[in-house]
Amino acid sequence: MRIDVIATADEAEEQKVKGKLAVVIDVLRATSTIVTALYNGCKGVIPVYDIERARSKACELEPLQCLLGGERKGIMIEGFHHGNSPLEYTAESVRNKYVILTTTNGTKAIHHAKTATDITIASFLNGQAVAKYIGRHFCDQVVMICAGTEGNFSLEDVLCAGKVIDELINIRNDVYLNDLGIAAKDLYANNKEQLHNILSHTFHYSRLVSLGFDEDVAFCMQQDIYPIVPVYVDEQFIINEKSSC
Amino acid sequence: MRIDVIATADEAEEQKVKGKLAVVIDVLRATSTIVTALYNGCKGVIPVYDIERARSKACELEPLQCLLGGERKGIMIEGFHHGNSPLEYTAESVRNKYVILTTTNGTKAIHHAKTATDITIASFLNGQAVAKYIGRHFCDQVVMICAGTEGNFSLEDVLCAGKVIDELINIRNDVYLNDLGIAAKDLYANNKEQLHNILSHTFHYSRLVSLGFDEDVAFCMQQDIYPIVPVYVDEQFIINEKSSC
Repeated sequence: MRIDVIATADEAEEQKVKGKLAVVIDVLRATSTIVTALYNGCKGVIPVYDIERARSKACELEPLQCLLGGERKGIMIEGFHHGNSPLEYTAESVRNKYVILTTTNGTKAIHHAKTATDITIASFLNGQAVAKYIGRHFCDQVVMICAGTEGNFSLEDVLCAGKVIDELINIRNDVYLNDLGIAAKDLYANNKEQLHNILSHTFHYSRLVSLGFDEDVAFCMQQDIYPIVPVYVDEQFIINEKSSC
Repeated sequence: MRIDVIATADEAEEQKVKGKLAVVIDVLRATSTIVTALYNGCKGVIPVYDIERARSKACELEPLQCLLGGERKGIMIEGFHHGNSPLEYTAESVRNKYVILTTTNGTKAIHHAKTATDITIASFLNGQAVAKYIGRHFCDQVVMICAGTEGNFSLEDVLCAGKVIDELINIRNDVYLNDLGIAAKDLYANNKEQLHNILSHTFHYSRLVSLGFDEDVAFCMQQDIYPIVPVYVDEQFIINEKSSC
């Protein structure tokens, strides 16, 4: 099994993605939010690339119950029900509803993954479940697309890729990595017990803390609290029932 | 002091480089070769972006004694005196001569560094000397441009950036890093005693070994054998006499 880790959504060109299993990672906060919403009973998360498309999608889907969620540069979008904080997507808020989500980096990364054969979503919250899913998927080619932050390498996403790899090599002994995958695996192995230490001076983590989202950041650093794997079917993420533990 | 590490030459856009001190890193093998040639008495290394320009530069510089050196995808260029192996650039071969060098990734990274205020060259062979130079340079903004390999993240270059950072934080306590800089520092700190272990399955390292360049690879992994700092003056790299130890 060959796994290539890509540092930013912009680098996820079609020839690096097409025909593979794509694992999209945006720890702070889109993929943590998607996983949380699904775990809390949301019927489906519909990722949308831009704000206007999110609003028109909500109109299209009426009379289904939809929530509009998302952010630009960390800030909630005017007229939307929720921002991009996983803490907002409680069971009370999302059960039996659809979430239409648009974010600065995460939904862009999902957009770049669309030529993949299959797409899933990883975060620290469900990394082990995703590793088990990949391990059983019998897929030769996996690409992990780290969303990055505004086009730049973002360490929390690469560490999360390292977590999935770290879990996966416990299951399979035929894992071959690109250079960033080797780096991600080593970085995670050396920091898994103290993620906050290495991340405390990183760009996106620091910015969210300075914007008052320190509870979000703490929430997103929890490991393996959700044993679910989102899969992309008919333009939305739903829980893959077969892979849930 | 702010240090940004950039993973590939392609990402070194002008706004990330202009007005800063640029440190170009292509461990396998361009920057290891440049440092070796200068240490062995070469009068200057002239990096050139393409093969035809290298040939015409040699004609321009006659009757000065010039050597044409370089490679494309690891292989020597027809009609050139040397490839890109540092082992070829012996004192006997280069003393009192100019070397005109063109390589797949390294000279491209140097080309992208040209809007910087100053340019230097780092490798494992001279990393400590470069750190001392940066520490004394009183420069607020440093950009480390890892050449990468054919547009991709190359772990040996990022580890070398981590080495320079690791040495620098022993000298200065005001170093602020971007996310890739934080990763590079951690990767180097965790692997500095066994660089070959983490690099043995990386792309560029493995390819050079498979092409028979295992002696080159072993040579380039030596740390701090050359106490010199190349600086870019009048389109060539020369030794910065003030900074040599």
